[in-house]
Amino acid sequence: MPHRVEPRTGVAFMLDRGQRLTVSDPEGGQVADLIAFNRDDVDETLSNGRTLDYASRIYLTTGDPLYSNRSNVMLDIVEDDVGRHDFLLTPCSKDTFRILYGDTDPHRGCFGNLAEALAPHGIGADRIGTAFNCFMNVPVNGETGTFEVLPPLSKAGDRIVFEARMDLIIGLTACSAPLSNGGSFKPIAWAIA
Amino acid sequence: MPHRVEPRTGVAFMLDRGQRLTVSDPEGGQVADLIAFNRDDVDETLSNGRTLDYASRIYLTTGDPLYSNRSNVMLDIVEDDVGRHDFLLTPCSKDTFRILYGDTDPHRGCFGNLAEALAPHGIGADRIGTAFNCFMNVPVNGETGTFEVLPPLSKAGDRIVFEARMDLIIGLTACSAPLSNGGSFKPIAWAIA
Repeated sequence: MPHRVEPRTGVAFMLDRGQRLTVSDPEGGQVADLIAFNRDDVDETLSNGRTLDYASRIYLTTGDPLYSNRSNVMLDIVEDDVGRHDFLLTPCSKDTFRILYGDTDPHRGCFGNLAEALAPHGIGADRIGTAFNCFMNVPVNGETGTFEVLPPLSKAGDRIVFEARMDLIIGLTACSAPLSNGGSFKPIAWAIA
Repeated sequence: MPHRVEPRTGVAFMLDRGQRLTVSDPEGGQVADLIAFNRDDVDETLSNGRTLDYASRIYLTTGDPLYSNRSNVMLDIVEDDVGRHDFLLTPCSKDTFRILYGDTDPHRGCFGNLAEALAPHGIGADRIGTAFNCFMNVPVNGETGTFEVLPPLSKAGDRIVFEARMDLIIGLTACSAPLSNGGSFKPIAWAIA
């Protein structure tokens, strides 16, 4: 049975080298922020800048490796039902909701959820950079550089599967930002095989 | 007189809140990677993920703030002769040259230059994330997500000016990657006013 990440929450767990992590969207239209740390040295973490540079592409899918800040492959994307994910934007946070939504009593967002879930593993909030945002749909206008945050293209049951290339600590959320999830908050499911 | 960053090198220096930093391209067609740290707490650093999210745009220019990982404004872009810079890609490194260029004895790149320049300030290599790459020309195809690294649009003497919103340690390079600089390596100039 897959594990369930409740709406607007986050979890952390171990993923061993060679294991496969399936992240699925049980109801459809829901984003899951995923972040990874080298379990043996948590200063090594996922880097969108390295990954995008080596891919020469901002949209990633099956066959694409996700690199660390030290240019080592942390995860490979091995299956992908959706084909549209985001790797440009940081996890939503109190500040996101304050700055972009004008909330006066903002939710702590994926950033706060990840910070709490990762703290017991010795990972501080400042170490949480740009997550790989599964199912997040951020089309970029190449002419102007502007982008929109549109509802995910994922349908109920769609999934993305990663294979670990090193022993990892994974942080994973069911995203808390209204725009990213088509205005509603749903769970995320994950399983290790 | 402006200071000069020699081709394929990097420097670090202090920039006080309220001061303006001019980065100029004396010969034209040369990239300068710029990174910033809060001088009072170097765990606070430039964040492309936060900045792009709040701008809803991947190309930044005059009027755009550059945010930290804690969602504080570190620098504002106050003048810009060029209008095309990159904030997607990490500084070039030994690994960049190995992976993208196939070099067997790679140059240490902007990453190595920044690491050496910032080490005396207590900033380790793992803390060097995605720089704001002045004059770097990385047009993205919004349909496919692919991007190219094209020669900079900067002409001789063109400049970009930043105003500091906190006391900063700045790292700055004359970029070492052939593709980013139209195949030749030129100096960069900087001045504080």
